[in-house]
Amino acid sequence: MDIYEALYTTRAMRRVKPDPIPMEAQAKIMDAAVRAPSGGNTQNWAFVLVDDPAVKAQLGPLYRECIEMLWSTFYKDRVDEVEANPDTPENKQWGSIMKSVDWAARNFESYPLFLFGFAQGDGSGGSIFPAIWSAMLAARAEGIGSSLTSVFAFKGDEVPNILGVPAEEDWRMAACVPMGYPLGKWGVAKRQPAHEVTHRNQWGGAAGFDTSAPLWANDR
Amino acid sequence: MDIYEALYTTRAMRRVKPDPIPMEAQAKIMDAAVRAPSGGNTQNWAFVLVDDPAVKAQLGPLYRECIEMLWSTFYKDRVDEVEANPDTPENKQWGSIMKSVDWAARNFESYPLFLFGFAQGDGSGGSIFPAIWSAMLAARAEGIGSSLTSVFAFKGDEVPNILGVPAEEDWRMAACVPMGYPLGKWGVAKRQPAHEVTHRNQWGGAAGFDTSAPLWANDR
Repeated sequence: MDIYEALYTTRAMRRVKPDPIPMEAQAKIMDAAVRAPSGGNTQNWAFVLVDDPAVKAQLGPLYRECIEMLWSTFYKDRVDEVEANPDTPENKQWGSIMKSVDWAARNFESYPLFLFGFAQGDGSGGSIFPAIWSAMLAARAEGIGSSLTSVFAFKGDEVPNILGVPAEEDWRMAACVPMGYPLGKWGVAKRQPAHEVTHRNQWGGAAGFDTSAPLWANDR
Repeated sequence: MDIYEALYTTRAMRRVKPDPIPMEAQAKIMDAAVRAPSGGNTQNWAFVLVDDPAVKAQLGPLYRECIEMLWSTFYKDRVDEVEANPDTPENKQWGSIMKSVDWAARNFESYPLFLFGFAQGDGSGGSIFPAIWSAMLAARAEGIGSSLTSVFAFKGDEVPNILGVPAEEDWRMAACVPMGYPLGKWGVAKRQPAHEVTHRNQWGGAAGFDTSAPLWANDR
């Protein structure tokens, strides 16, 4: 797959089939992930792949509690607004994200694979998120959908404890990435145009290019 | 370019030519970057591209001070060890990274382009580093080398102030990415094998695959 196709179409893909992911694909995903950069190339990362139904059964209820907490705290105003005015363009997009997240919560145990990423001594996240994003891009190349969530952070150390992460080694859980073969279609992620969020030389300086229309399109 | 070639060969490329980067390539890089995920798709990011020699002249001395601080504080033990035992495999690798970072410090003003990434309300880094890494991967596809540094953090708000970032808007500078056409060659980044840092279902559980040899190779 072309790099631009992967970069443009690896959007959050939460609705997936329960079909298992072959070990060869998992190996390719993880082998690509560890090529990512880390501060001083220290590679202070660790990954846990979860495909055991018994472990998923422990994580599922926690995930649903975390999503409940997300809606009732961090995104409460947003949820209220979507309920009050469901038809504005922004609220439509939010409503769609919420539906898809609720799908993930209801169907958590049906995901064939979860990737958890951990980092040591990485305050910024700059030494773990490139690797996690590489894993998601490699998964895309294998036809596997994924999404990135840090919502388990609501539960403190409960998930690391379930996964047996040694408490004395100071691993920080950066993210959970549920994976699976998509039920939906791949498409280019809609975003605020790049030139509107890019400044040149000084804050407010014009980017110098126009990206009103995406510069890559999937013509197939 | 194939996605795997980009994922495997986008390694820190600090020695680059001063040749300018065409605006079309910059547009492609940034348009790809904003397709990356962010928490709740809030896209709370902003980017500053620096190509003005006057701005670079302000940043260069700060960068050199930051690198001095890096060597004398965070990596002091490592620097001492490399000087004491330069010939162990690990210290050779570190010596090589240090040389390349020192090259970057001496030649800071000769980089044709810097990308700075900023995020709002992103404690984990999970909503900015995927975009920054996407920019680096897209740059790779355009034949442009890059590296990722957060060393300017040593200088607190000095760099955001130089770039005119509004202090009241709570933007956190996540990273600086110097870019340019490489003086050296692209190659697959050597890493601790993925199966050694991947656990299955429980910490310590065998990954279930073997990645002793990289699963992708540049045969050209």
